[in-house]
Amino acid sequence: MGSHVARRLLADGAARVTIVDNLSTGFRELVPSDPRASFVQGDLLDQALLDRTFAGHDFVFHMAANADIKDNLAVPRKCVDQNIIATQNVLEAMRANKVGAVAFASTGSVYGEPEVLPTPEDAPMPVQTSIYATSKVAAEGLLTSYALGFGFNVWIFRFVSLLGPAYSHGHVIDFYRRLRKDPSRLPILGDGKQRKSYLHVEDCVSAMLLAVEKQPAGDRIAIYNLGHQEWIEVSESVKIICRELGVSPKLEYAGGTRGWVGDSPKILLATDRIRALGWAPTKSIEASIIDTVRSFESHAYLLRE
Amino acid sequence: MGSHVARRLLADGAARVTIVDNLSTGFRELVPSDPRASFVQGDLLDQALLDRTFAGHDFVFHMAANADIKDNLAVPRKCVDQNIIATQNVLEAMRANKVGAVAFASTGSVYGEPEVLPTPEDAPMPVQTSIYATSKVAAEGLLTSYALGFGFNVWIFRFVSLLGPAYSHGHVIDFYRRLRKDPSRLPILGDGKQRKSYLHVEDCVSAMLLAVEKQPAGDRIAIYNLGHQEWIEVSESVKIICRELGVSPKLEYAGGTRGWVGDSPKILLATDRIRALGWAPTKSIEASIIDTVRSFESHAYLLRE
Repeated sequence: MGSHVARRLLADGAARVTIVDNLSTGFRELVPSDPRASFVQGDLLDQALLDRTFAGHDFVFHMAANADIKDNLAVPRKCVDQNIIATQNVLEAMRANKVGAVAFASTGSVYGEPEVLPTPEDAPMPVQTSIYATSKVAAEGLLTSYALGFGFNVWIFRFVSLLGPAYSHGHVIDFYRRLRKDPSRLPILGDGKQRKSYLHVEDCVSAMLLAVEKQPAGDRIAIYNLGHQEWIEVSESVKIICRELGVSPKLEYAGGTRGWVGDSPKILLATDRIRALGWAPTKSIEASIIDTVRSFESHAYLLRE
Repeated sequence: MGSHVARRLLADGAARVTIVDNLSTGFRELVPSDPRASFVQGDLLDQALLDRTFAGHDFVFHMAANADIKDNLAVPRKCVDQNIIATQNVLEAMRANKVGAVAFASTGSVYGEPEVLPTPEDAPMPVQTSIYATSKVAAEGLLTSYALGFGFNVWIFRFVSLLGPAYSHGHVIDFYRRLRKDPSRLPILGDGKQRKSYLHVEDCVSAMLLAVEKQPAGDRIAIYNLGHQEWIEVSESVKIICRELGVSPKLEYAGGTRGWVGDSPKILLATDRIRALGWAPTKSIEASIIDTVRSFESHAYLLRE
């Protein structure tokens, strides 16, 4: 996600882009080769590093997070540290350096198991079902509190799961890895009937930059759902991946309507708010899945484990 | 709050009650004198202390928090530490000791500046306006995530501001302190038109214990608003306090519709959910204010600063 944002900013003429990543799930290879781009390997839990690094910048895209919703119960403090504390560190480094604007990668998971589909930004307050989503709700609240308290401009983007080149998180890379090891069988969490929306990362970046550009002066807080109007079943997604790889594995469904505790079996976001600015996805979910799978062939380092 | 819960549990026949408090805002004098009550002075950020203390218990009332919403911007990390991290410590100590049930003191502030009044539990997802409320939303989410992930039973109570004997937090003690020092003038935040609901702490404790008692078997998560159907303006509250103290200060309103950044000028919670269990407040807001003021006369230690 971060590398896609950085590349787009450079393409759009940014004078300088600094990328901060601890490379826990990111890849050095994805940092753009451009004299205007600099890379700082460091952790967002290192406040002093952030305080130094943010000097002289005027906008932060805060995309760093522990996004591992599946395993959040195994390491219950990880999301709190990496998503809540790290976000407050970002906000404090902004205060220290008088950086007044931040865009934040939140998640459609903040809606829990929504009663309303497609789910709008002002859906009924849900019961939070995962530490991951809880940590994102908390990070959102820190952003809006700092916006009101310290005069920041904040953009909160609640995504569906993303797809696209080099997208090294989520079910596509999981299935890809398994099928490369053993194309004869594919274990799948849940019953395959979970139905979710996805979005190509390039469409996502376009939406974010448009929202930042179109923000009415004086509005300190913007919250947007970002997702595709299409949604597909896990079982369909599996078919697309297998067809693309030319394999016919035995599909071994674990059963149950949810992939894991806190998994929402249905995700579809209402995107009227961002569409009102003139945005729409340019790529179908199927094309996005194929794009993701093909990118793994040309980026072998993504498959390092 | 905690001392009122402890006293009620003892009156209801509890075999043993352990009170943990760092006395940062609590008072040793409020710990019930009862052979079944024991007191542990300690901080919820001390995980080892919690792990030891929770041994042999079967229910936790987690009422500890930094409740200082007014000053949350001055010390931005305090609410995160004392309300989010401390809550996760409580949950981890419960896991370590196989304690499976917890009641949590949340706040009506989680609704931000609600568009719907009275505000129901499933109000539209608000924009969080304070680090305090953000930290309570996060704590709620941790409780519900642990409930689903680890099989806990959790009760979340979203209160209006409380009143009652020895209630050493909020506007009544603030005004009382100021008027005892200088009865000729009273500085008041905002324009005095903020209109809020309050609840007597004894009515609040009754509601919590009723909700715990009536929980349907199998329901792991309960969320209740607790508040009075009445609400009053700050200016009315001031009149009641002044009349009770027999003083006529010059009222010096700071102006503005909010007392502080993140103050919600209107707070009234829909309490249909708890009322459906047969609960209703027994004391008017006026009687509760008077009860609070009178208690300060007989509990001089509450006025220590």
